[in-house]
Amino acid sequence: MQDSPVLALAKDLISRPSVTPLDCGCQELMSERLKAIGFDIESMVFEDTTNFWARRGSDGPLFCFAGHTDVVPAGPSEAWHTSPFEPTIINGYLHGRGAADMKGSLAAMIVATERFVVDFPKHKGSISFLITSDEEGPFINGTTRVVDTLMARDEIIDMCLVGEPSSTHSIGDVVKVGRRGSLTGDLVVKGIQGHVAYPHLAKNPVHDAAPALAELAASHWDNGNEFFPPTSFQIANIEAGTGASNVIPGELKVQFNFRYSTELTDKEIVARVHSMLDAHGLDYDLTWTYNGQPFLTHDGEFRNAVSSAISDVTKTPPELLTTGGTSDGRFIAKMGTQVVELGPVNATIHKVNECVKVSDLEQLCDMYYQLLKRLFS
Amino acid sequence: MQDSPVLALAKDLISRPSVTPLDCGCQELMSERLKAIGFDIESMVFEDTTNFWARRGSDGPLFCFAGHTDVVPAGPSEAWHTSPFEPTIINGYLHGRGAADMKGSLAAMIVATERFVVDFPKHKGSISFLITSDEEGPFINGTTRVVDTLMARDEIIDMCLVGEPSSTHSIGDVVKVGRRGSLTGDLVVKGIQGHVAYPHLAKNPVHDAAPALAELAASHWDNGNEFFPPTSFQIANIEAGTGASNVIPGELKVQFNFRYSTELTDKEIVARVHSMLDAHGLDYDLTWTYNGQPFLTHDGEFRNAVSSAISDVTKTPPELLTTGGTSDGRFIAKMGTQVVELGPVNATIHKVNECVKVSDLEQLCDMYYQLLKRLFS
Ligand SMILES: [Zn+2]
Ligand SMILES: [Zn+2]
Repeated sequence: MQDSPVLALAKDLISRPSVTPLDCGCQELMSERLKAIGFDIESMVFEDTTNFWARRGSDGPLFCFAGHTDVVPAGPSEAWHTSPFEPTIINGYLHGRGAADMKGSLAAMIVATERFVVDFPKHKGSISFLITSDEEGPFINGTTRVVDTLMARDEIIDMCLVGEPSSTHSIGDVVKVGRRGSLTGDLVVKGIQGHVAYPHLAKNPVHDAAPALAELAASHWDNGNEFFPPTSFQIANIEAGTGASNVIPGELKVQFNFRYSTELTDKEIVARVHSMLDAHGLDYDLTWTYNGQPFLTHDGEFRNAVSSAISDVTKTPPELLTTGGTSDGRFIAKMGTQVVELGPVNATIHKVNECVKVSDLEQLCDMYYQLLKRLFS
Repeated sequence: MQDSPVLALAKDLISRPSVTPLDCGCQELMSERLKAIGFDIESMVFEDTTNFWARRGSDGPLFCFAGHTDVVPAGPSEAWHTSPFEPTIINGYLHGRGAADMKGSLAAMIVATERFVVDFPKHKGSISFLITSDEEGPFINGTTRVVDTLMARDEIIDMCLVGEPSSTHSIGDVVKVGRRGSLTGDLVVKGIQGHVAYPHLAKNPVHDAAPALAELAASHWDNGNEFFPPTSFQIANIEAGTGASNVIPGELKVQFNFRYSTELTDKEIVARVHSMLDAHGLDYDLTWTYNGQPFLTHDGEFRNAVSSAISDVTKTPPELLTTGGTSDGRFIAKMGTQVVELGPVNATIHKVNECVKVSDLEQLCDMYYQLLKRLFS
């Protein structure tokens, strides 16, 4: 039996070992397919990162499929039942690095669009693809640079479907309608180094900081809301000392991270942390890294279209969540875009023996097709 | 002008680069001198550490001069005004690694004993030397092993003068009549590692421990007493985290040290720390290292003899303190020995350009001589 178009394309993509930031020709393969059905292709290479932007149509609204061709490293190959870059079907599951995150989604997007264009060659609006090879890496030269380029020429995406593996048990059971914000603080509390035998000549920054850290850890930041859990503070790294047991350390380094809801802004968090540290009379430096604002796609035509497209296929509406880590959706949401994430079951992503159910890929392709139809037919 | 006997011997010792645990013949040099005046010499080599025990006389009480031939590394030689192992006199100060800590003391001990034996060949009691090459190092195979050997054969030192540099401004202004105890705790607080995006699946040991560390740091342990400052608790090292900003650490390591007075025992400290940690509900392992019990040589004949010997030379009685780090005195005090420390000004020890005033060495030799005379003539 011949492979279906979705399965054949997924296999072709998986067979290319495109570990971040490599692309290994995945994007050329996708571009050729899109070009054949009337897309304008724009390659956007930034430093070591390959990206492309493809668009069919010039009318609004502008809908976008977003995704990445890069994959995380395969890890220990002896722990794999199959060769990670040789796509293999076992008991109805397609195995290989990237099968679920997210070469399966990319294949489903392409095939769904091909079908839609055949059925509705004069569709309304515009369909686009924003594809990067740097989603799993430092996300410096990927989606964020493409978005900057688009915004600079006022080409604004209205609605975006990111193909990240959002499903938890069965395909389409969960879509992500937002993500929490992420904010990292690097704190250095300064003391005076000395010998433990002469504590009056030293100032122990760990002692000075301990009550402040206890207060930060015990703080209630907000209640969250319907779509977001309460904001969470976590100390990820802490370090002080020379290694010797008789030296009072001269400084303490603490790195902490906030995952925050739309109930708070980064400005509010920064102000609250500084006022706590100041209240404890600490001598400190604090550097902030802004990893991404929270975003939420509210109830509306696009979110409903995604839910309905899923129901068309599975007869069950999805759960709408904002849980989990960050995704490139945060960079696209900066444009004011409504962003929803819908992709395969994520149970095996970033693990050995990553796999996706072959029938899920077919269903995902159907969902994407139904979405295009609901938006633009 | 020819060097005095003390200066000549100090120079000879300093010219030997006996960085811990090396001895470089220092002990052989000392042994030969003591053998010549009727001492029985017993070499005690344990692993890489050279030690010797020398005794003159078989009667009690048994008095001991204790010290070490090893020195700390010279450090950056370009920062020295002289070559660290070429003893050099500049403006009345003898420069070289070990000049103050404590080859100057060793020379003063030997020459004082030689004079005393010439003047009082049939002295009362017994005079001994306990010399190690491992005082600045891990103190495993040095004084503590010699003490074990002596105790095993019931040869108990009654009174001991340790030649550590006790003086602060002028020779003999301070003697140490005891030392605080030192106790180190290695604490591991256990949590559950996880992703910062899923805090409900993890347990952050830094958050759990912060209130307990704040309480330990703020605790009042005792008031000290006439001879000891209050017991002090210091966190020397703390560490948790993988380095990544998005991982909640699985465990927290904290190393802390107590310097404690004779108002507390190590057992009491251990019990108080455990009860605090337990009260905070922590899941932890705690390993204790007992670095030395506190000791105090009370008012009495020996302490008075040391004070008087100093007054004989400087016309000023010394201050009696227990401040500073640990010394090998703690191992000797285990025998029930009265231990006093008297040596040169300690301003330059363990630093570049270590030096000692030449006239101080002569005065120190006189003090040691006067002590022997007061005890045994
Ligand atoms: Zn992904
Ligand atoms: Zn010393």
